[in-house]
Amino acid sequence: MKTIQLRQKHVRPNVELFFEEDPPMIVRGKGQYLYDENGNEFLDCNFNVSHVGHLHPYVAEAVHKQILTLNVNSRFLNDKLSVYAKRLSSKFPEKLNFCYFTNSGSEAIDLAIQMARAYHKGERHKILCLEMAYHGHLESTMRISVYKKKDGNYPRDLAAVIESERDEITVCSVAAFIAESFPSCADEIQTGFGRIGTHFWAFERDQIVSDMVSSGKPIANGYPLAALVVKSQVSNSFCAGKRTYFNTFGGAPVSMTAGLAVLDVIENDNLQQLAQEVGAYLKQKLQELQLKHWLYVDVRGQGLLVGFELIRNKDTLEPGTKEADELQVRMMKENRVLVNLDGKFNSVIKIEPPMCFSKKDADNVFKSADRILGEIEARLKPTGKHTK
Amino acid sequence: MKTIQLRQKHVRPNVELFFEEDPPMIVRGKGQYLYDENGNEFLDCNFNVSHVGHLHPYVAEAVHKQILTLNVNSRFLNDKLSVYAKRLSSKFPEKLNFCYFTNSGSEAIDLAIQMARAYHKGERHKILCLEMAYHGHLESTMRISVYKKKDGNYPRDLAAVIESERDEITVCSVAAFIAESFPSCADEIQTGFGRIGTHFWAFERDQIVSDMVSSGKPIANGYPLAALVVKSQVSNSFCAGKRTYFNTFGGAPVSMTAGLAVLDVIENDNLQQLAQEVGAYLKQKLQELQLKHWLYVDVRGQGLLVGFELIRNKDTLEPGTKEADELQVRMMKENRVLVNLDGKFNSVIKIEPPMCFSKKDADNVFKSADRILGEIEARLKPTGKHTK
Repeated sequence: MKTIQLRQKHVRPNVELFFEEDPPMIVRGKGQYLYDENGNEFLDCNFNVSHVGHLHPYVAEAVHKQILTLNVNSRFLNDKLSVYAKRLSSKFPEKLNFCYFTNSGSEAIDLAIQMARAYHKGERHKILCLEMAYHGHLESTMRISVYKKKDGNYPRDLAAVIESERDEITVCSVAAFIAESFPSCADEIQTGFGRIGTHFWAFERDQIVSDMVSSGKPIANGYPLAALVVKSQVSNSFCAGKRTYFNTFGGAPVSMTAGLAVLDVIENDNLQQLAQEVGAYLKQKLQELQLKHWLYVDVRGQGLLVGFELIRNKDTLEPGTKEADELQVRMMKENRVLVNLDGKFNSVIKIEPPMCFSKKDADNVFKSADRILGEIEARLKPTGKHTK
Repeated sequence: MKTIQLRQKHVRPNVELFFEEDPPMIVRGKGQYLYDENGNEFLDCNFNVSHVGHLHPYVAEAVHKQILTLNVNSRFLNDKLSVYAKRLSSKFPEKLNFCYFTNSGSEAIDLAIQMARAYHKGERHKILCLEMAYHGHLESTMRISVYKKKDGNYPRDLAAVIESERDEITVCSVAAFIAESFPSCADEIQTGFGRIGTHFWAFERDQIVSDMVSSGKPIANGYPLAALVVKSQVSNSFCAGKRTYFNTFGGAPVSMTAGLAVLDVIENDNLQQLAQEVGAYLKQKLQELQLKHWLYVDVRGQGLLVGFELIRNKDTLEPGTKEADELQVRMMKENRVLVNLDGKFNSVIKIEPPMCFSKKDADNVFKSADRILGEIEARLKPTGKHTK
């Protein structure tokens, strides 16, 4: 039976596939490239989890060596947990010095929610969030993730309120957390580990020190690991009494080793610096799109986390959802460039590649998007008149 | 700085250590054995996650090969997810044929809770549970885990009710779920993958087919993976509308490969059969303890998931909490046998070793427990008079 038929038989369709109608069958990866079963090379502008590159040999070797040595849980004293906790802490401002290790960003955010509620001794339950953020697939994090509820009707740009009832929720804003003097949580699952270029963590850009910082996805280059790093006073209530925290796989030696190896590669290969340089170049190329096309191209982001939204009309802000969808599919089919769609209207082309992404890769993204956008525009409005 | 001091500096004490006062520093594992920094060998009767043995070379090799090939998320079509979903489904009754992959048992249970609530379209919110079970560290699963609330005051043996408010909760009972015709969930995180010997899953022993089955810990021999396997009708509401389920690491090719390798080893090495034979032998040896000692030794469990409770007085059921604690510590210090404490009163010595555990290992557990129990009794009650 073909892979996709087998999948349909045993995996429900709400576990979505990219390019559902005709997905490429991916069999191999290397650096910023993925390969299908026929050996075709795809430029991966999408999978931020492979932070230091698909299947980085240094990380793979470190993981393999540790798998052949020891992999137990955090209840057994072992040096890897202590060493990685120290190393990860060293990447944060001094007061953020205690680490909890989980298996996913969702688990880290869930823990942050538990910790915030413990801090307030149950008297405060709600979480202040930003519209359109997404904090994970768990029951607790879905309650603060409007993003997943695309059929809902929410204001577009307002920092908004709170949960408790699933129907009233939006997502984490560092600023709002601080303004409200909640124990605040900076969600660095997408933005951390040097991706934004100028800083190792995005919260540093705002010169604030959050009470808790969650990190995940890129932390171990695909090995399931996430972390919540907290200030001591924020976690005191959570640690009080007989309340323990045990996470079976969280903090196991192999995941710690993967985390250590990723930090090594980021430092040894100057990936943060590269993200800053290549990200700036990429953003500049995308801004060229804005000059060349009458579909308004709104470029946002920093470092190697950038996106451009297609907007049909700059005055009404009518989103170019259909155009973005066509652009994404054709970039894959015609140029083997994999980008993702994002945003409230799925009108944003998001680029969040492995950090070894090069200027040449940025050129290829530009060339593909430029050509296809031109063709879409020619069909939509043959005169090519700019509506700006 | 020493490992333990480094740990205390960066990890809060509610992430507990075994043998907190003087924990051995574990540096290596192999089969059912762990080794400290001085090369001392410990018999691991505890770490069920290393299901087919610590650092099994077959699993390690498969994982390494896959790490050097591809590791992306479930949105990319890849054969490993489909193949493992088929293989895992084949271990279940026919109707349990859809798989959701997560990173931890906690995430799988959380998903089961979300799915049960979606099935009832929000009209039923509470979860029927058994006293003293534990279903995970998440906000949602803590609400149904009395186990973690040792300071609470709960009846000891009653199947009990329900959550909603954290203060009123107990844990999942397969029987109760069915009796109430809830979409029921069998939590096989501890019991699955042949551990009980007679069956691959514990729910099969009762000749029922749950609507959902969660599995975790042993599923991939320590690689972070868990699964929720469901009937189609139970998941229909969860899949309806625009509700998607995305788990960043869940279902990634490396975790699927680890899961496949574990199933291979269980089958190739007849581990289920071994668990039945060695488990029966171990239980028989533990029952000998009951005959030889005046502390009442209540032996429970099946296959390689057995325990014995120390009870000071068979009539009042006064638990032997202090004695169990002393026994556990001395078994580690004097004979390097690692067992865990469990139960409401921490009076149960739990034995849940890697499945390659041998009869000789069972003899060593017996000898250590027998000698130390004798010494504890001699000190407690020098006459040695039996109170049964």
